[in-house]
Amino acid sequence: MTSSPDTDLEEPLSIQDLQEAWSLLVHADRVESFRALGRPDAEDFFLSLSARDQAELLMALPPAERRSWMRLLAPDDAADLIQEIPHEQRDELLALLDDPTRQEVSGLLAYAEDDAGGLMSPRYARLRPDMTVDEAITYLRRHAAQRAETLTYAYVLTPDHKLLGVVSYRDLITAKPDQRVEAIMRTDLITVPEAMDQEELSRLFAAHRLMAFPVVDAEGRMKGIVTVDDIVDVVREEATEDIQKIGGTAVLDAPYLRVGIGEMIKKRAGWLAFLFLGESLTATAMGYFQAEIARAVVLALFVPLVISSGGNSGSQATTIVIRAMALGEVKLRDWWHVMRREILSGLGLGAILASIGIARILVWEAVFHTYGPYHTLIALCVAGSLIGVVLWGTIVGSMLPFLLRRLGLDPATASAPFVATLVDVTGLIIYFTMARILLTGTLL
Amino acid sequence: MTSSPDTDLEEPLSIQDLQEAWSLLVHADRVESFRALGRPDAEDFFLSLSARDQAELLMALPPAERRSWMRLLAPDDAADLIQEIPHEQRDELLALLDDPTRQEVSGLLAYAEDDAGGLMSPRYARLRPDMTVDEAITYLRRHAAQRAETLTYAYVLTPDHKLLGVVSYRDLITAKPDQRVEAIMRTDLITVPEAMDQEELSRLFAAHRLMAFPVVDAEGRMKGIVTVDDIVDVVREEATEDIQKIGGTAVLDAPYLRVGIGEMIKKRAGWLAFLFLGESLTATAMGYFQAEIARAVVLALFVPLVISSGGNSGSQATTIVIRAMALGEVKLRDWWHVMRREILSGLGLGAILASIGIARILVWEAVFHTYGPYHTLIALCVAGSLIGVVLWGTIVGSMLPFLLRRLGLDPATASAPFVATLVDVTGLIIYFTMARILLTGTLL
Repeated sequence: MTSSPDTDLEEPLSIQDLQEAWSLLVHADRVESFRALGRPDAEDFFLSLSARDQAELLMALPPAERRSWMRLLAPDDAADLIQEIPHEQRDELLALLDDPTRQEVSGLLAYAEDDAGGLMSPRYARLRPDMTVDEAITYLRRHAAQRAETLTYAYVLTPDHKLLGVVSYRDLITAKPDQRVEAIMRTDLITVPEAMDQEELSRLFAAHRLMAFPVVDAEGRMKGIVTVDDIVDVVREEATEDIQKIGGTAVLDAPYLRVGIGEMIKKRAGWLAFLFLGESLTATAMGYFQAEIARAVVLALFVPLVISSGGNSGSQATTIVIRAMALGEVKLRDWWHVMRREILSGLGLGAILASIGIARILVWEAVFHTYGPYHTLIALCVAGSLIGVVLWGTIVGSMLPFLLRRLGLDPATASAPFVATLVDVTGLIIYFTMARILLTGTLL
Repeated sequence: MTSSPDTDLEEPLSIQDLQEAWSLLVHADRVESFRALGRPDAEDFFLSLSARDQAELLMALPPAERRSWMRLLAPDDAADLIQEIPHEQRDELLALLDDPTRQEVSGLLAYAEDDAGGLMSPRYARLRPDMTVDEAITYLRRHAAQRAETLTYAYVLTPDHKLLGVVSYRDLITAKPDQRVEAIMRTDLITVPEAMDQEELSRLFAAHRLMAFPVVDAEGRMKGIVTVDDIVDVVREEATEDIQKIGGTAVLDAPYLRVGIGEMIKKRAGWLAFLFLGESLTATAMGYFQAEIARAVVLALFVPLVISSGGNSGSQATTIVIRAMALGEVKLRDWWHVMRREILSGLGLGAILASIGIARILVWEAVFHTYGPYHTLIALCVAGSLIGVVLWGTIVGSMLPFLLRRLGLDPATASAPFVATLVDVTGLIIYFTMARILLTGTLL
């Protein structure tokens, strides 16, 4: 990377400037610019970075400086940071934390990164059911302020940590001071098991629009909370992964400009080579129709047009269905419902393209006399194939995500290029078979 | 729609059951199930619906029942609902609100739906700078609880509504009761102008991880707040729109199963027909090489393989770049940097496919004797074209999003099928030109 923002050394760098420039700075410049910030700015800036960037920065600082940055982090963020560090260096960083935080962080590291357990914060405000509202407010003032990740809700627990209910700060502030917490708490709670997948979790936030959900274990004991600000990142990440898969690459797992060229080629070559091998079946398929092509070269002219229409309609269907699945709008059991809809759509779309195709061939023939005496038959052959190919593309594109999910795989693997490749070979067979049926005795 | 969940009438329907089944229910069943819920459940359920579903449900209820549901909504949610209703019925719904809320809602309706102004809530907690902490807490207790959308922050305003600073509830609870609010407030605020686009807003939330941002007008007067829970929806919606565009459809703007077949065909036919017209240039391009195909039919066999490789590498490049742009990882000024990277990636990927292509042809020739005496030349011709076509696909796919953004259009319009179509015509020209150069005098 050569371009580096014009950091005027007379004027101290602002946080905004640094955030703007960050993705363009090389490693050494990052550390230097960071260390040039005053402590309050540096803290704000450090907290605004992703866990990956925090880890990179931290490991570039002298070991003596690392402790104060590690201690700045809430336990869930510290756990995220440590997960970005090679295994052999993790203990060293854990040792920098004070005892209670280290225990919390070690506890969090045991969860998979994209479970509710891996996203949750163990710092939340706790109340006892028999406290009065006044006692609760005094208690929260004294104890919870430093510890609580969110101040939107306080959770009401039994002495053995079973979750009884929740009160919002709004509830506490509006209740009478001598009411008991158990009298004002809400008990119709939605709780989340530790192993809930982050994608499901994000749908739960979308459906209920709460600021936080409590995470409980199998015995109903409260383990922590997941807050909506973590979910913004999850939604964004999941969408990025889906988009990259739909485009036919492996997930990049890092910002575009931060992935080295070698790594980038590796992430893309796998799928590209696989698709190439699949597509090379088109050469075999066309080989079977070599005699037809030799007799009527005009047939070869429409091959790309016909097969690409199948690929395009398949791309549409697969991306629409993948997204609907990711949003929870379509479930596995809806497959037949989707299939019926897509058959109708495929027929409709095929008919539209077929009409355009016929018009195109007849107009060209009238103007340029390109396609010879059998142009009407050729037009019918192209049109018929288009209906078949578009219908087939739509069915394959919409059903493949269901099949993949049924097999326990990610539906987004049904990328647009993958569907196009699958449809190309069958598209050729549909087209040349149609040609044999319609043109034998005339052109063939 | 025929399938309807087995609602056992003995057992009352739970909210969860209804949420599960909602997308499958026809209109009449929805209204009936909703009215079967007890009032507290019905309220929770109503609040969990999207603005579109709320609007549909509301308009299906008798006019006399609508008022109590409208009054349940916070002004920003009421404004969202009203935006889903045909213009001529809006006044009728507005009339159901009490005076102050109606004013707030009318104010919000003036903003574009996907601006910060359209997302914001005018209900937030306000403090004066010269209040003591104790007065502030008492004041918030008394006045803010019913009005404040979020209880995470309170905003400190001058009498003419200029924004001075912010205090979190955590700050208030931990401060000494006799300190002044201005002594503990944070003044290094990040504010958002009313017209900020929601995509930019979502990047701001991602960068700063705050629960809310204040929205101010050009004079620095506070207009409202945007909270992170609204941003989850924005991030999700923007990703859905991008994914649908990448797949080559118009944005559906509604859940998959809720879009009628006619509407669905309309949303997809436009792009498909456009792509078809573009792709029909391949028939014209191949027409120029008819003589070559007639002399060497074997050339036609590799047409789908060569051009689809360009399309696939172009799909990869365009989706990766579109997503990197949406996340703000890549800016317009980075185009040359991206171009250099993609040229290298394209050459690398092209070389890999070229090697596989050569191996494929030589192995088939050795085993099946398919390609005749000039198979080495054919292999070279295919391999050379692959490098050219993949490189070209990568360049077009990565640069098109930049071009579109430069023209003020949405980069996601550079859908995978669009790039594939663009690349197909040039792919054919590259392939047949390569064949003329390498094979004239032998096969041609």
